[in-house]
This record gives sequence, structure tokens and C-alpha cells, in this order.
Amino acid sequence: MNPMEKLRTLQKKLYSLQYALAVMDFDAQTAAPSGSDEGRSEAMALLSDMKYQLLTDSALPELLQQAEAMELNVQQKAEVRELKRLYKETCCIPAEEYSQFTKLTAKAIGVWQKAREEDNFDLFAPYLEEIIAMRRKMAGYFDASKPAYDVWLDQYEPGLNMEQCDEFFAQLRQVISPLVAKIQALGAEPAPAYLDAEWPLEAQRELSLELAQLMQIDLDHCAIAESAHPFTTEFYKGDVRITTHYDQRDVTNNLFSIVHEGGHALYELHTADRLQYTCLASGASMGIHESQSRFYENYLARNLAFVEHLWPTLQRLFPVQLQGVEPESFHRAINRCEPGLIRIEADELTYSLHVMVRYEVEKQLMDGSLNVQELPAAWNKAMKDLLGVDVPSDKLGVLQDIHWAGGDFGYFPSYALGTAYAAQLFAKMKEEVPVESLLRKGDFAPINQWLEERIWKYGKEKLPGELLQDAFGEPFSSVYYTDYLKEKFSHLYRLN
Amino acid sequence: MNPMEKLRTLQKKLYSLQYALAVMDFDAQTAAPSGSDEGRSEAMALLSDMKYQLLTDSALPELLQQAEAMELNVQQKAEVRELKRLYKETCCIPAEEYSQFTKLTAKAIGVWQKAREEDNFDLFAPYLEEIIAMRRKMAGYFDASKPAYDVWLDQYEPGLNMEQCDEFFAQLRQVISPLVAKIQALGAEPAPAYLDAEWPLEAQRELSLELAQLMQIDLDHCAIAESAHPFTTEFYKGDVRITTHYDQRDVTNNLFSIVHEGGHALYELHTADRLQYTCLASGASMGIHESQSRFYENYLARNLAFVEHLWPTLQRLFPVQLQGVEPESFHRAINRCEPGLIRIEADELTYSLHVMVRYEVEKQLMDGSLNVQELPAAWNKAMKDLLGVDVPSDKLGVLQDIHWAGGDFGYFPSYALGTAYAAQLFAKMKEEVPVESLLRKGDFAPINQWLEERIWKYGKEKLPGELLQDAFGEPFSSVYYTDYLKEKFSHLYRLN
Repeated sequence: MNPMEKLRTLQKKLYSLQYALAVMDFDAQTAAPSGSDEGRSEAMALLSDMKYQLLTDSALPELLQQAEAMELNVQQKAEVRELKRLYKETCCIPAEEYSQFTKLTAKAIGVWQKAREEDNFDLFAPYLEEIIAMRRKMAGYFDASKPAYDVWLDQYEPGLNMEQCDEFFAQLRQVISPLVAKIQALGAEPAPAYLDAEWPLEAQRELSLELAQLMQIDLDHCAIAESAHPFTTEFYKGDVRITTHYDQRDVTNNLFSIVHEGGHALYELHTADRLQYTCLASGASMGIHESQSRFYENYLARNLAFVEHLWPTLQRLFPVQLQGVEPESFHRAINRCEPGLIRIEADELTYSLHVMVRYEVEKQLMDGSLNVQELPAAWNKAMKDLLGVDVPSDKLGVLQDIHWAGGDFGYFPSYALGTAYAAQLFAKMKEEVPVESLLRKGDFAPINQWLEERIWKYGKEKLPGELLQDAFGEPFSSVYYTDYLKEKFSHLYRLN
Repeated sequence: MNPMEKLRTLQKKLYSLQYALAVMDFDAQTAAPSGSDEGRSEAMALLSDMKYQLLTDSALPELLQQAEAMELNVQQKAEVRELKRLYKETCCIPAEEYSQFTKLTAKAIGVWQKAREEDNFDLFAPYLEEIIAMRRKMAGYFDASKPAYDVWLDQYEPGLNMEQCDEFFAQLRQVISPLVAKIQALGAEPAPAYLDAEWPLEAQRELSLELAQLMQIDLDHCAIAESAHPFTTEFYKGDVRITTHYDQRDVTNNLFSIVHEGGHALYELHTADRLQYTCLASGASMGIHESQSRFYENYLARNLAFVEHLWPTLQRLFPVQLQGVEPESFHRAINRCEPGLIRIEADELTYSLHVMVRYEVEKQLMDGSLNVQELPAAWNKAMKDLLGVDVPSDKLGVLQDIHWAGGDFGYFPSYALGTAYAAQLFAKMKEEVPVESLLRKGDFAPINQWLEERIWKYGKEKLPGELLQDAFGEPFSSVYYTDYLKEKFSHLYRLN
């Protein structure tokens, strides 16, 4: 076998271990009995260790060098690049510290759940302190020349740093804050009374399938399951799973979960066949992935044309609940702007403000200018500054997200960034594809095809920057996102 | 690490790979989208190969020898014994042939499904011929001094051979055939009309949970899922899964599936904690496992005392369907004897005759005295001889079971043997535990405890022969089974 063939064998082994770990995690969240954590953790730790052994094999650097000396095509070069990154990231952390960190975060997630339930930040604080200390130390292993937070931003979104984030969020704030202020000056707009109803689960389950079919998600290769929190996972491009959570009192929850996760799923279902079983066979980055889910959720499903197409289906499934309701009213209801406390319940306009709150405090926690004891107060102040809301409890404030307990610092910005990528994709697509008239007809094929050609099929072959540049025909700019928000919400609230 | 500690590390790695393979198989049968086989097969083949590499490690024989030279306790001795067996079984087959066999049977299962659907034995015949040829060759690798079929009987039930099976089945036939003849002489007894009804799925699902609770199956460690064919799988003793299949037109199908699979599950849920993560941490053999499932299905759930206890629950869940029906009528209906064509639909009395048909033709296929072309005729003749029925098509005859397509020869006898083990357990238990009065009260604790103490907790630590001898206080004898059948069916059909 030549070096490249040897690397392919390695990638297939990594694939199979990753497959197993993904199925075990999916099973844990959708089907496992409540008391089954212990044996699963043992098995997953050992399988992760097998992955670690493969990636830290002392023969790997030479093999990568030999492969680089060969004449490689674009895909092969990308495989070597990605394997080098994986090798470097895995090797640089001492095995003992990595295992210590895994155990710490596994424990911290349980503690965080309890702390949130009991509204007791002090319970979680010592774990958070230890996690931050370890994350700062680990960032040094990766790249001691950079600030720790830059290291983590780059982990989730290759190429991203604080300088870019600062500029990006400043631009967003400049547009979003005045818009929110103008809308709030109009006075509170309550949700329409018909939304507060019983939405039978059987009909909601049927709606899930109707939405998947409408989006042309191939259900022979994508199954829908139920879990406490919706997510998407891919075992390989022929087996993607999305989950949703049915709430009898809220039909929009499931509707937007399916569309959002469906966007993630379409991406994974359409990576090129040639990437299969390599380390390139999934989405390019967290931000790019989020751009796909947000594209379907915000730019398509919150569009009046989409609601109008879906209306006969909704009327058929919920004839009593939606009796006499017009699609315009529903469209308005799902686009209602109202600053609130919880990120995952935020409307399209205020969503990025929630991300900014996290960005600001994460940055300071990482550079040591904010300590954990001061965090709740800093959180509450940022919420007041950015969203104008008073946080009544840590449960509804700093304790609401799982990310930090899992050690994820620098992840949040990719949510806002992905939403902004999607705005630019939406603008560019509309230059070539009559999106709204297609939505009104329920014809997703040209929309999906456009994204497949520009984004999906490349998997991780292109780095995010290159991928976006090629898709846009120009560099990324947040102006598309801010212009979109300005236009949409000015129109909805007749601000001009 | 000393040799025994090294073997523990090996066992834990085997555990984690086995865990992953079991979850992937369970997921495939319960949750996976229809088109997801390809990538799963690739991943499973690679994980199986990792297991193969661990078990054929050239350092293993010496490690096992070193461990044997240590002072070992009973469990450690059993671990070494089991690892030696695994090493021997894995090493003796050339890797290439093993992989060829895996691919052949994977393909053959698809062909068998098609052949059964189309009632076309010729389609399946060439695959079956190749499987038999490979199985005969592989038996030679295991132990060239024994007839091939003895090798395979011993695989599923350590210690079993044709001599014992011949004697066992002769004893069964001597009792069962005259009983069946006497019952048939009484004339056909149709199933009661009320069974032919709509049995709502929601109520059937609730019945599953009620049955599991009644059997004291800990649902924190055992989940119930749905699949085309019911089965039980264990990831470890803290995570067991049973599946059932709901048939809107048949309530007994699900009822007995849950009780049968529940018996398998109780066994796995109660292996001793000290066996966890070792190769001893699951049931002792196919026959012993089947003895537990049959114990609950036949000896307990087909007992009038059980039906009487369950009656208020059944009446509550199916008030219309069971209106005016007495438990005695239902008990009679679920014990109706009627020779038929399909093994998995057979009643308690004729079940072992179906096994005998398979035993007779398997034996001859393995020693070469019957060739595949002659198989359907031999099958039909055996069905006529043993059950008195005419087989109208291969679909309802020789093509009904999946086992041979999967390469499983010598598996069927363990079904009958397990049922006979259970009869002896039932007789011995009744000497110490008032089984029927406990069933009438719905108190399974003393029953479960008796089995846990004698069977469940040992896992694979004892070999089947020793395990049964210790549990019975005497050697296994088929007389308990034949006496039970004689008494039960003489009483039901008033034959005396």
C-alpha cells in the first residue's frame, strides 16, 4: 500500500469508531433506559481511547509527510490537511489531561443540571472554574502564541478570531439594537390567543413527515426520532437522524425544530459520494452547519410564501385549532419580536443579542478579566445592556445553556455567524433562483440543488473561508444579514 | 500488570467493541432508515475485525498460559477458560475464510428473504449449498476428530452431541406423538370467535408495560422497542432491550413475546455484578437462555393461575373485546393443540416436533447423506411423519426460518432442550416455592429470586452441564418435560 492508501485505511477505522460512538450517543438520547449510563460510559471511553491510539500513532507524522510528497489531487490534499490537524490536536494534549477533562465535563454536566433545577449557581461554580482553568491550559498546548479564546474560536470555526468577532458583533449591534428599540416603543404585542391550544401529538407527528417530504429529505436515509432537546446526527451520508420534541401546548416548537434539523440533515445527506469513509465526509464547520439549518428555519420557513404553501396542510392537521385563522396572522405570530430571557426561545431579530451576551462574558472568562464568582452579575448586566431585560434568577440566566458544562467555549459565536452566512447565501441564491415563488409552490428542488452545488457536496474539503468565498463569489459580509433584518422587521412593524 | 490484569484489560476492550456492535444491530432493527445498510455494514465489519485482531493477538496464548499458572479463583479460572475457547475458535479459521463466510451469509439472508417471498427454493439452493460446504470445512478447523454436526451442536450448547440429541428427541417423540394423536382423534377445536378482533395498539403497549412490571423487570435498565421479529439484546447488565411486534388482529402475539423476551431479559439483568466487563457477563448458552424465556412463557404465562391474575388488567385494557369472556376460556384458547406448518406459531405440545424436523434434516445435510436438492422433499416427508401435516409450499415449509441463511446449523435443538430444562426447573422450584399461588397473587419476587440464585447470577461462569446439575441437584432428564406435557394436555383434553 502506498502512503495515501494507508491513510485511507486509517480514515476508515476512524470512521467505524466514530460511527459506533455516534450511534451509542443517539441511542442514549432517544431509546436507552434511564439507568444505563455507567456501562455506556465505560464502553464509549474505551472506544474513544481506540480513536486516540489511532490518531497518536508514532508512525503517523512520517506517513503524512510521505503522502504530502506524492502527487495528490484536491481531495487527497484536503484529507492530509485534515489528518494533520487531527493528529496535532490529539497529540498536543497529554493523554492523562485529556482523560481528566473528559471525566470533569461528564461530571460537570450532571452538576449543571442539578444547579439549574435548584437555581443554585454556587453548586456549579467550582466545576466551571476548573473547566476554564483546564481550557486555558489546553489552549496553550494547541498554540501558545495565541490568546486562549482565539484558539477555541478557531476550533469551532477554522480561521475565526476575536478581532473578527468584535467587528462582526459591533456591526450587528449597530443595526439590531435600534430596531428592537423602535419595535418596543410600539408597545407590547401579545401572541394570538389561538396559539395557546392543545395540538394533538399524532397530528404533530404527521406534520413532521409532511415537512420532511416538502423539504425533499430522503426518508430512506433519514429517520426522525424524539429526544428531550432536538439535534441532528449523521452516522454516514446514507444514515442521518434528526430528533424533535413534541409539546402538546406548542405547535411551533416542533415545526421549527424539524425545519432547522432538516437543514442540518440535508447538508449531511448530500456530501459527495467520493468523500465517504474519509475524514472530509461531513459539514465544514459549526458555523457553516448552522448556516444551513438557519437557512431553512429563518429564511425559508419564517417566510410568508412558505406559510402560505403549508397552510392547507396545517388546516387539515389542526382544523379546530386553526379554524378561521389566516396564514398572514400565523406568519406574523412566528415573527413576533420580543426581547426575552432564553436564547433558544428568542425571535429572529433578538437571537444574535443573546449570542453577544455569551461572547462578551466568555472572552473575559478566558482572558481572566472576569472570574466565575462575578459571572452571574456580569451576565445580568449584559442582558440588561443588550436586551433590556432584568434576569430574575440564574436558572433563567447564566445557567440556561449546557455548553460551558461540556467545556465548549467559543461555540456560541458560530450560531450568529452561521445565521449571517445564511443571509448572504439567501441574497445570492435569489439572484439566480426565484426562491419565494418556489416556496409558494412547495418546490424545494432548485433551492436544495443550489445549496448542494455550492456548499453541501464539498463536506470538509474546502475550509470555511474558501467555501464561502466560492459560494458567494465575494468575501463574507455581515451587511446581508443586517440589511435582511432591517428590511424584514421594518416591513413587519411598519417602521418606515 | 500481572497476566490476569492484562486479560481483564483485553476483556474490557472486547466488551466495548461488542457493546458497539450490539447497539448498531439493535438500532438497525428498531430505528434505522431503510436505506442505511451499506455504511453500517462497513463500520460493523471494521469493528468486528478489531475484535478479531484482539482475539488472535500472537501474545495471547502465552498470556493465557501465564495466567493459568497463577493462583486463580473460580471466576478467574472461568475467564481464562472462556478466553481460551474464544482464542481457539477465532484463530482456527483463516481470516480470509471467515470474512468470506460473513459476506456469504449477509448476501444469503437477502436471497432467502426473496426466495421465501416468491416461494422459490431454487433461488436459495445454491447459497445453501455453499453455506453447508463452508460450515463442514469450518467444523474441521475447530475439531477434525468430531463429525461436523457435533462441532456445531457444541457451539450453541457446550457439551451437546448427536448421541444425546438422538436420545432426547426419541424420548420426546415417544410421549408427544401419541398425545397429539389422541387430541386429534377428538376432532378439530376452532379458536374462540372473540380472539378474532381489533386489539388497539395503545392498549397493547400498555399491556407490555404492565407485563414487564408484573414480572419485576426493572424498566430503568430495560427498554421495550418494536421490531419486525421480537428479540432480546443486552449491552451490559444495566442496559437490556426487548422488542415486540404489535399485531392489531392478535393480542396473544404481543403478550407472549413480552413474556418470552422478558425471561431472556431477567436473566441478563441479574448476572452477578462481579462478572461485569468480563467475557462471563451473559447467559451460559443458547439452551440455558431459552430455558429462561420458555419458563416464563410456557410454565408461567400459559398457567391458569397467571391468566386469572392478569384477567382484571386484560378486562380493563380490552373491555369490548373480552366482554363476558372467562379466564378459563382464554387459558384454554392459549393452550389449544393443533399441528400446523409454522414453528414460531406452534402450540406448546407440538413445538418440539417442529424442532425435530429441523434436527433430522440438519444432521443429514451436515454428514452429506442428504443434498440440498432433496431437502424440500425430505422436509415435507418429516412434517408428514412427525406432525401429520401436508406442506403446500416451500414458503410455508423449508423456507420459513432464517437460521440456515445465517449459517446457523445446530441451533434449533437448543430451543427444545431449553424448554425441557425449564420443565425440570419448574418441577424443582415447585418443591420449594408455591409457584401457582404466587402467580395468582401476581408476586414474582420469590420465583425470580429462585432463578437468580441458581441460574442467572452465574452468567457463563459455570458450563451448562454443571450449572443445571447444581440447580437441579441431579442431572438433566427429559422426563420432567414429558411428564409435564402428559399431565397438562391429558388434563386439558380430558384424555384419561
